[in-house]
Amino acid sequence: MQDEEATEEEFTVTPWEVEGKIDYEKLTEKFGTEKVDEELLSGIEDIAGETHFMLRRGIFYSHRDLDWILDEYEKGNEFALYTGRGPSGHTHVGHLMPWIFAKWMQDKFDVEMFFQLTDDEKFLFKFENTLEQTHSYALENAKDIIALGFDPEKTHILIDTDNIDTLYPLALKAGKRLNFSNVKAVFGFDNSTNVGSIFYTAVQSAPCFLPTELNEKDVPVLIPCGIDQDPHFRLTRDIAETIGYLKPALLHNKLAPSLDGTGKMSASQPKTTIFTTDSPEDVDEKVNEAFTGGRISAEEQRKKGGNPDICAIQNYRFFIFESDDERVDDIAKRCRNGDILCGECKGLLKENINDFLEKHQKKREKAKDRLDEFLFDG
Amino acid sequence: MQDEEATEEEFTVTPWEVEGKIDYEKLTEKFGTEKVDEELLSGIEDIAGETHFMLRRGIFYSHRDLDWILDEYEKGNEFALYTGRGPSGHTHVGHLMPWIFAKWMQDKFDVEMFFQLTDDEKFLFKFENTLEQTHSYALENAKDIIALGFDPEKTHILIDTDNIDTLYPLALKAGKRLNFSNVKAVFGFDNSTNVGSIFYTAVQSAPCFLPTELNEKDVPVLIPCGIDQDPHFRLTRDIAETIGYLKPALLHNKLAPSLDGTGKMSASQPKTTIFTTDSPEDVDEKVNEAFTGGRISAEEQRKKGGNPDICAIQNYRFFIFESDDERVDDIAKRCRNGDILCGECKGLLKENINDFLEKHQKKREKAKDRLDEFLFDG
Repeated sequence: MQDEEATEEEFTVTPWEVEGKIDYEKLTEKFGTEKVDEELLSGIEDIAGETHFMLRRGIFYSHRDLDWILDEYEKGNEFALYTGRGPSGHTHVGHLMPWIFAKWMQDKFDVEMFFQLTDDEKFLFKFENTLEQTHSYALENAKDIIALGFDPEKTHILIDTDNIDTLYPLALKAGKRLNFSNVKAVFGFDNSTNVGSIFYTAVQSAPCFLPTELNEKDVPVLIPCGIDQDPHFRLTRDIAETIGYLKPALLHNKLAPSLDGTGKMSASQPKTTIFTTDSPEDVDEKVNEAFTGGRISAEEQRKKGGNPDICAIQNYRFFIFESDDERVDDIAKRCRNGDILCGECKGLLKENINDFLEKHQKKREKAKDRLDEFLFDG
Repeated sequence: MQDEEATEEEFTVTPWEVEGKIDYEKLTEKFGTEKVDEELLSGIEDIAGETHFMLRRGIFYSHRDLDWILDEYEKGNEFALYTGRGPSGHTHVGHLMPWIFAKWMQDKFDVEMFFQLTDDEKFLFKFENTLEQTHSYALENAKDIIALGFDPEKTHILIDTDNIDTLYPLALKAGKRLNFSNVKAVFGFDNSTNVGSIFYTAVQSAPCFLPTELNEKDVPVLIPCGIDQDPHFRLTRDIAETIGYLKPALLHNKLAPSLDGTGKMSASQPKTTIFTTDSPEDVDEKVNEAFTGGRISAEEQRKKGGNPDICAIQNYRFFIFESDDERVDDIAKRCRNGDILCGECKGLLKENINDFLEKHQKKREKAKDRLDEFLFDG
């Protein structure tokens, strides 16, 4: 028993802290979520007409009530998508994962998308952040969302401090049903936690109920998000029905790894994280410094091969930058055989990233003038 | 020591609970406030050109930094007034006390007035209240404020859920500096307190900073309010300077007594509380049932006299309905001498109340069409 407990303590995942090497299988048990199985995958494929590499590769690997969302959809009861971002800095490519996937979902299912930028959260949870900074990053991040090509007719970007008039009544309803014990148990808060942070989860709950309010009928909500956000919505699900709303469903992705191979990609580690605002030189430098599965010398690698399983370069390709499965497998195979060395392999990734960023940054620049099309003005 | 502690425990005063017979002297010690002294009274009189019966009679009896407010005013640095009300029902005459006084202060000092109607609070702190109900009472209460004759050019009524866009950024700044220990110690919260209630005090803090934000310069704020509200602003004062604002000053009134002579007037005890919406018949009935200092028979009272010190009728007169000190004293004297019996005395009070309510209700009716002049639309 003791050993089991010790193992469970090896990693910590909360919305504000990810520590240790995450065992994603164990995490689903710990959180009590369901694994995405073959039946669900083909359910999505049947409706969408194709699958998405993030589903195929098990990046979106865990869920709550996704089966119910698909059943309702087939009955003609459309769901709304909801995801978000804490604007503590510029968007990094790890953030884009659920967004790229959500964009695909919107295209395939033709549904409404709600995007919450939580400038209040990032102000409350980090002492040195000012509200002016987090609000300004919210607008920066909004440009990335727009640049990904979401449908302006069906996409609504909420910035908490700008849209609090809409969110607050819903947050109050949720906040009345959650007590300090609940948030303490789920987030590990203690007596020194500030009262803004204690209330905050209610604000993140609010968009789960918004589509129902706006449509004046029950609208199922599907939240594609990093598994680290699950604790918030576990609380939301616990209280949703008592306040007259449907429980939101979730589809969780694994967290994008950092370039140094140690943990989750994080905006607070800029040297091991690719931002959407990075120049080609930044990308070259960061990728050059990345942790790989290479050997100590070129000679040895040619002889014994590298290890793509532990390689941050291969991970980046796998998680975001290469949608072609064969190409991903092929590079892994060539690595293992010693047919491709780290320099060349890094070069391929840099090309992928810089191609993507060149186009993205152009669209991002144009998005400046398109904010009004997307910002919620409920 | 033990005796002293026991005595201190005989009454409880928080914004949501008043229990036992309040010892107002002890309360200033417990809360750490200052008594309003002769120097302050004449300071106000010097500026106002007259005094107010609620000051003369020691109803507004305690303060924090009122001397500073007057000093600044004399230097040409005008303060803003701020008070509020939790809209859990119709306004009762006890609520009017600080409002009548605030109106006098506005007249005499010609200053801005901010009035907060906390529909969120009354939703969060009472399980059975809906947000629709508390919001609707907020609008009802607003009519009473307007009926009292505040200057529409200088008076701003905030309803929390309507004005949260303005209040939320300020509440976040306050809420980031207050932790669970702080609110636990001051309000007696525990792990079962809901997270909305835990955050709420930050929303009540927000208007303390609003005049400074609106004027883009430091504006001192004076809060005339019931002493039971002091705990909120004690917290505000603790953190104000750390977030770049002046500490609000306070002027506390004793709480209006109930008609049964047992405690504080309370909307939850409708039979012993006069509401501004009461008909003359309601008033007659409630006053007739009031607790008095009378004797068991008219004969005995004529012989031995009554006791106005414990009499709810005399209290009502003293606290609100008779501004003429001589008249208050004269009735007390006649009561003690047995020259006036309870029936006649009640008749005088009914006349006072019904005269007031008749005029008030007419102005309240007209206030329906004047809400826009007063509701904050910042």
